[in-house]
Amino acid sequence: MLDDINALVAVTPETFRQQRAIDARILHEVIAIDPARARVRVRNLQDEKEWWEPYDKLLIATGAIPIRPPLIGVDAEGVYLVHNLPDAITLRHALDQKRPKKGVIVGGGYIGVEMAEALLRRGLEVTIVERAPQLMLTLDPDMAELVAREMAEQGVNLYLGEGLAGFDLKNNSVLRVITDKRSIPADIVILAIGVRPNTSLAKEAGIPLGERGAIKVNERMRTETDRVWAAGDCAETFHLISRRPAYIPLATIANKQGRIAGIDIAGGSATFPGVVGTAVVKFSSLEIARSGLQEREIEGLGWEYVTAKVEGRTRAGYYPTSGKITVKLLAAKGSGRLLGGQIVGEEGAAKRIDIVATCLQAGFTVQEMVHLDLGYAPPFSPVWDPLLIAARQAARLL
Amino acid sequence: MLDDINALVAVTPETFRQQRAIDARILHEVIAIDPARARVRVRNLQDEKEWWEPYDKLLIATGAIPIRPPLIGVDAEGVYLVHNLPDAITLRHALDQKRPKKGVIVGGGYIGVEMAEALLRRGLEVTIVERAPQLMLTLDPDMAELVAREMAEQGVNLYLGEGLAGFDLKNNSVLRVITDKRSIPADIVILAIGVRPNTSLAKEAGIPLGERGAIKVNERMRTETDRVWAAGDCAETFHLISRRPAYIPLATIANKQGRIAGIDIAGGSATFPGVVGTAVVKFSSLEIARSGLQEREIEGLGWEYVTAKVEGRTRAGYYPTSGKITVKLLAAKGSGRLLGGQIVGEEGAAKRIDIVATCLQAGFTVQEMVHLDLGYAPPFSPVWDPLLIAARQAARLL
Repeated sequence: MLDDINALVAVTPETFRQQRAIDARILHEVIAIDPARARVRVRNLQDEKEWWEPYDKLLIATGAIPIRPPLIGVDAEGVYLVHNLPDAITLRHALDQKRPKKGVIVGGGYIGVEMAEALLRRGLEVTIVERAPQLMLTLDPDMAELVAREMAEQGVNLYLGEGLAGFDLKNNSVLRVITDKRSIPADIVILAIGVRPNTSLAKEAGIPLGERGAIKVNERMRTETDRVWAAGDCAETFHLISRRPAYIPLATIANKQGRIAGIDIAGGSATFPGVVGTAVVKFSSLEIARSGLQEREIEGLGWEYVTAKVEGRTRAGYYPTSGKITVKLLAAKGSGRLLGGQIVGEEGAAKRIDIVATCLQAGFTVQEMVHLDLGYAPPFSPVWDPLLIAARQAARLL
Repeated sequence: MLDDINALVAVTPETFRQQRAIDARILHEVIAIDPARARVRVRNLQDEKEWWEPYDKLLIATGAIPIRPPLIGVDAEGVYLVHNLPDAITLRHALDQKRPKKGVIVGGGYIGVEMAEALLRRGLEVTIVERAPQLMLTLDPDMAELVAREMAEQGVNLYLGEGLAGFDLKNNSVLRVITDKRSIPADIVILAIGVRPNTSLAKEAGIPLGERGAIKVNERMRTETDRVWAAGDCAETFHLISRRPAYIPLATIANKQGRIAGIDIAGGSATFPGVVGTAVVKFSSLEIARSGLQEREIEGLGWEYVTAKVEGRTRAGYYPTSGKITVKLLAAKGSGRLLGGQIVGEEGAAKRIDIVATCLQAGFTVQEMVHLDLGYAPPFSPVWDPLLIAARQAARLL
């Protein structure tokens, strides 16, 4: 647990002003963009004053907003979001003060999984309600099943394939979560249903969105509107494997896009080729990672593929901290080009996804992956890393 | 510590015979190869009988032999090698029975470093004597210095730039290690000076060796002699970055070569493109890794290069198990092509070398590395992995 929540603030407004010569104005909201006259409408939230502020170049970095189902009770006492730092502070305060016993998490994605761990560690009885028939939709069902199994073992109640239908309230405080199949007692409810790009400002200003609903940008993070850039969770990105636009609201991508936009706006030269969709998350002692395309995505593209799944060990079998790891690789039928990978396992498992990500970026085939000269010593991996065994297995199926 | 030493035996002779239909004859030594008549001279070490055994195809997998300096006392009581399993059993027995207080390790490479940890954990006072002016010659001096500093902090006496000159003995038991600068009291001495390819059989049979002194092989692990293959620590390998033959006696390479040789001998088709020279080792809580070429090697090739060195954190700075990590990248001046990388740091640091190894194999530039879509979550890395920061820094120096 973190004692000083300020450690989570990457850069303060003071640092922006004093060290970077950036006039960072907090508590000022932009309420409209006027690209034709190159100006934004600003409202000072402290004194409610409004005015037009001109710009030479504009970066839209409005991020994502959490999805809140349009249900009565979504704003009730005891129902929380964990989207930003104030949300987290509010939730932590509630956990500390009210000592809830039963926590219900709506949504079984990254945030839901992380919150399940956090609530378990505080001794709550934890329930996850997920509309899809599996946890973690960015994993294939068989890999998500490994996560579900670990969660069940740790006592998490999983209701998969059940949609949130409403809340039972008393004096505007949540009592129960209602799904389309049951009603679940809840002292607190965490909504972790996902996010969508915060594009309303852009949309109203006529700045084009892409096919994924996020602001359309090119490889310099320029929108299709003159003098306007966009970066981060409000913007689209390009998927290097599907070769199509994608919307992946993750910190790594947002940071990379911001850097490229900054360089381009400042007159430098940089481009962002795109992403391969890497993500990692931890649930208790289980590590979960994915990169590239998953089966559903490959099928959506109409591509033929082979699958290799290997159960191995994170370290030399005889090494004391050696743990279980399951590696799944997906490769194009015929050519053997790596299309994606997923990893679920114990300590040390997940970051092997970086090898998969690098191979995806390199356009490697699984035949090429077999020869990877990965580091070996008993405390770090078996002589044949499970990843290499999976690549060998995939290569035999082409 | 390992209770059952048999866990270290990957495949027993019984498994070879019963499950793989391989007539594995232990305690039979090949004492000569006769390629002209396609036969080997075999001696049964149990009954001393000798005979010629014919072959259709021959694989030489004689491994490496430890270097033993030609000094009086090298065979004395209390002087140990740690080359194979019987060596380890003998050493462990001596540690258990004699309870030595002072251990001197001759050689500061991978084995020396690992043995230092093992002896420290048993409570010995540990001294390392290394002829070179630095530990771990496969690292650049500045990175090796980080290892030396950690060793010194943990109380290891380091005598660098000092050659082994001899031993003080009493009744054929070692009392002191003599270097060219001092004499060091020793209850036990471990010789970890390095290995050389075990090529005497091949050499006597006229099977050509390569420029590194190991058996010369092509990418199918064929020697230049008809019907004879070689693989593992007795054979050469090809370095993908220097584009020259290399001798790197490591388990990963030996295993890969053995697999290729087996496929080729059995009539299948496979080739081994080569290696990038990846290695990892652990000393106590410090993780050490390298891949590609180091400064000395690049200078030896006459190439111009840039260096980026970054001190960062293994995980998000605020995460409880976040630790120190130093990443060094070497890239070709001008083109930016990655030439090598070295990592020293706390838990979680070393296996990032696999990303470096994969980039080397892909022929990536540091400019391309900046865009790597590595997995991020606070328990696993900072948003900007130190590796990406090092790549950014290197890209600015081109």
